[in-house]
Amino acid sequence: MRLRNKPWAKERIQNYPQYVIQNPEQWKGKWNELFQNEHPIHIEIGTGKGKFITEMAKQHPDINFIGIETYTSVIVSALDKLIEAELTNLKLLNINAIQLESIFAPGEISVIYLNFSDPWPKNRHEKRRLTHRSFLEKYQKIMQHGGQIHFKTDNQKLFEYSLVSFSEFGMILTDVNLDLHHSDFKGNIMTEYEEKFSAKGNRIYRCEAKFPEKNK
Amino acid sequence: MRLRNKPWAKERIQNYPQYVIQNPEQWKGKWNELFQNEHPIHIEIGTGKGKFITEMAKQHPDINFIGIETYTSVIVSALDKLIEAELTNLKLLNINAIQLESIFAPGEISVIYLNFSDPWPKNRHEKRRLTHRSFLEKYQKIMQHGGQIHFKTDNQKLFEYSLVSFSEFGMILTDVNLDLHHSDFKGNIMTEYEEKFSAKGNRIYRCEAKFPEKNK
Ligand SMILES: C[S@@+](CC[C@H](N)C(=O)[O-])C[C@H]1O[C@@H](n2cnc3c(N)ncnc32)[C@H](O)[C@@H]1O
Ligand SMILES: C[S@@+](CC[C@H](N)C(=O)[O-])C[C@H]1O[C@@H](n2cnc3c(N)ncnc32)[C@H](O)[C@@H]1O
Repeated sequence: MRLRNKPWAKERIQNYPQYVIQNPEQWKGKWNELFQNEHPIHIEIGTGKGKFITEMAKQHPDINFIGIETYTSVIVSALDKLIEAELTNLKLLNINAIQLESIFAPGEISVIYLNFSDPWPKNRHEKRRLTHRSFLEKYQKIMQHGGQIHFKTDNQKLFEYSLVSFSEFGMILTDVNLDLHHSDFKGNIMTEYEEKFSAKGNRIYRCEAKFPEKNK
Repeated sequence: MRLRNKPWAKERIQNYPQYVIQNPEQWKGKWNELFQNEHPIHIEIGTGKGKFITEMAKQHPDINFIGIETYTSVIVSALDKLIEAELTNLKLLNINAIQLESIFAPGEISVIYLNFSDPWPKNRHEKRRLTHRSFLEKYQKIMQHGGQIHFKTDNQKLFEYSLVSFSEFGMILTDVNLDLHHSDFKGNIMTEYEEKFSAKGNRIYRCEAKFPEKNK
């Protein structure tokens, strides 16, 4: 439990209920009420220290963002950035993505960001990967038809695995970039892990995959 | 016209009609009669000098192979290898892949190999890429349901393009390898271009994509 290292973390996030939403189940199907507008909702799963989602929220005021991170000791850093930036279009949830369906209603989400998700390289841990079929099923339940996943990683094996997993699930790859930092991709926002791994010289992979327009 | 460099090439291939099939349209729907067995038929488009397809035919006597190459001056090198190896399960066609539908009947082919296809990097030449939608339509017409394309290249842009093209066509990616020569892939057979480009240190990309099991 990383939490032990930061015993004050839980208290701190409870002090900012306007940013880290408590009992998020109560907003299921009503997230647009919380944001007080009808803008599309994008979520990031495994937000970490929050650089990506905070920057996205600043640059796209017409989109509502929700950052989801299971570790209290990590999400506090995202909270610090949000307090600093005072954004109304970004909320944080200190939950595990396993619970997504109890928190969002069908069709409520239009884009999911997965950035540098834990690779779980061992075959026996395949089910823990956030791009495993069982997670894609959860995502599909809360997403609009045609909703998209935007995925970045430096992990070659996880990227290969995920392309196949998306495709076998019936998703369509609409963009694939095998060397993001040496491409003409515009407007990339680096995550904390992306800064660290690209500084080491690792290639960054990125793709966009969309769910079918209509469920079959 | 590269042919001018080797005026004897056309004559040479005509001297081996048992290997380089003349008037291949006559065998449409009857290729298994030519091979005198019911084994599945795999074709390679852009066979070049023929190392890959000759080696495949040696290693897989229970599969019939057909190598297709538009340049007479190039296919003669493939012919030399075939004469040397005396294989009954390999034929060569000196034609352009544009004509595929006049040469093969629906369902006649089960696997297509594309190795180091010309990248045609300019946008205005997109239609010439062998993984463009218009070629996928041709391939689908002659392939079994669930038939596969096995594609290798060192060209990053062409590979990115092709993954998206396959996916948007409704094909399913069943395998993706982003660094073939540093992976646990077994039984790879190098093509002439693969030897050349990997010696330069280029990464080799590979994928398998399959057509839907049933046409919609
Ligand atoms: C490798 S870090 C990447 C963090 C950040 N996205 C970045 O790129 O810098 C993965 C993060 O995902 C979180 N995480 C992993 N599985 C999760 C899940 N099922 N639900 C919520 N968060 C998860 C981890 O706690 C960790 O902070
Ligand atoms: C870059 S070379 C690769 C040769 C070989 N596959 C290798 O990997 O060494 C591409 C080859 O495809 C052939 N080719 C290109 N378009 C073709 C088409 N439409 N039909 C038949 N052959 C074609 C070219 O003539 C050339 O020999």
